[in-house]
Amino acid sequence: MKVLLVFAHPEPRSLNGALRDVAIEELKAQGHEVRVTDLYAQRWTSEVDRADFLNLAPQAPLGPAAASKEAFAANALTDDVKAEIERLLWADALILQFPLWWFTMPAILKGWVDRVFAYGFAYGVGEHSDKRWGDRYGEGTLAGKRAMLIVTAGGWEPHYSGRGINGPIDDLLFPINHGILFYPGYDVLPPFVVYQADRIDDARFVSIAERLRERMRALASTRPLSYRPQNGGDYLIPSMQLRSELGASGATGFALHLNEAEALPVFERSLPSGLMRGG
Amino acid sequence: MKVLLVFAHPEPRSLNGALRDVAIEELKAQGHEVRVTDLYAQRWTSEVDRADFLNLAPQAPLGPAAASKEAFAANALTDDVKAEIERLLWADALILQFPLWWFTMPAILKGWVDRVFAYGFAYGVGEHSDKRWGDRYGEGTLAGKRAMLIVTAGGWEPHYSGRGINGPIDDLLFPINHGILFYPGYDVLPPFVVYQADRIDDARFVSIAERLRERMRALASTRPLSYRPQNGGDYLIPSMQLRSELGASGATGFALHLNEAEALPVFERSLPSGLMRGG
Repeated sequence: MKVLLVFAHPEPRSLNGALRDVAIEELKAQGHEVRVTDLYAQRWTSEVDRADFLNLAPQAPLGPAAASKEAFAANALTDDVKAEIERLLWADALILQFPLWWFTMPAILKGWVDRVFAYGFAYGVGEHSDKRWGDRYGEGTLAGKRAMLIVTAGGWEPHYSGRGINGPIDDLLFPINHGILFYPGYDVLPPFVVYQADRIDDARFVSIAERLRERMRALASTRPLSYRPQNGGDYLIPSMQLRSELGASGATGFALHLNEAEALPVFERSLPSGLMRGG
Repeated sequence: MKVLLVFAHPEPRSLNGALRDVAIEELKAQGHEVRVTDLYAQRWTSEVDRADFLNLAPQAPLGPAAASKEAFAANALTDDVKAEIERLLWADALILQFPLWWFTMPAILKGWVDRVFAYGFAYGVGEHSDKRWGDRYGEGTLAGKRAMLIVTAGGWEPHYSGRGINGPIDDLLFPINHGILFYPGYDVLPPFVVYQADRIDDARFVSIAERLRERMRALASTRPLSYRPQNGGDYLIPSMQLRSELGASGATGFALHLNEAEALPVFERSLPSGLMRGG
């Protein structure tokens, strides 16, 4: 496979830098081709502004969505953004690696999403009718590709558990996994998360690195999260609400958007998906 | 009251620009003192990097949390960050105004959080014991102050409802409201959200502006979201998990961290909190 790893940590001599090297080494050992976008190293610009849209008239007000649509259609996005779009189209799998800062990604990575995920490329794709509401959430430009997060968190694992004070890690990452990655079509794999990332001794690093290598070896075969495709019949159109007979009774929240009927115990997730689907 | 409004939209001639002006006008009409941090206008730097920490030795690896702790303690943060910290200490109320991009704040505002919410100021505050786990989640430097979001979203309101495909807006905003604002101590007010923000005619704008004026008039009296204080007895220490007898049985997710016993119907939220607490 072709793999793009987008790396968002300011210090190569960090846990994140070491884990990145482990991931790349293992991916290459498996015969994958790897490219890395190192956002800090290449001094990525984080802010969407007028300079993003080369065809925007100097006096025209900037409407970011409309400007993005027009610039993408006219091939008038900036070279840095166009290069990232080419890499996303090239890659069979996308890995976003970052430290969890204030319960989400660092600004520089959000700025990569804000600028690269253009209208007509990552959103605003497809037609709307009484049967379909655009190509999004499981369909779209990046459908058929895989994506996963590698995340380090300073906090303790129980603080991110189902009843933990920070909120469950799967819910904290839902806006990224579902809203940023599943939205333009990616199959999203379970995240790789390291807790208490500021307190890692050599023995723990060895164990974390081995877990990460396992995930990299299984990148092509790990079962994706069972998010529900938008246009597959589970949602009413145009209200895009989950049909009342689906999901646990009375439930609300992000977990509704996982198809529990397809969900399997975690220990089975790393089996080849072909095997899983065949039973 | 003293109010700080942090504004994160690149175009003053936008819906966000117009709503900002409405909010400021109404706040001033109520006798409040208002300051505005206009992130795009002042070309805010979004990326945490070595340049943030004036006392970091040139050859030392950058550990962002440790560097932040040392620089905050030594008064060696940059002038732009120190100015924002001063404004946060000055203000009785903080308003963050932004368009929802990819289900969270734009990079430039995340960069304001990443850089301004320093260790020793917004996190890493207070002592740990078997009774307390630092001053956070309802306690901390900014306790006693109020905060709220003004958010515009391109999507339809039902898509953000309890069973909507994007996820409930309250859950999407939880990492901000609970994880960024409640964490350092703010009382967090219900957000002001505008949907279908790209399709607003004059009549709808008038109605939205009036709703916003009402919220600004009630800024000092609106009942905050009933997030549970960390050290108030609801959470086990040190696992920081919500006690098993609290919250709906079997429930998980963000909603657990609201104290339902204190929750009141939405229509009562804008009454003065003194009245509410008195019954």
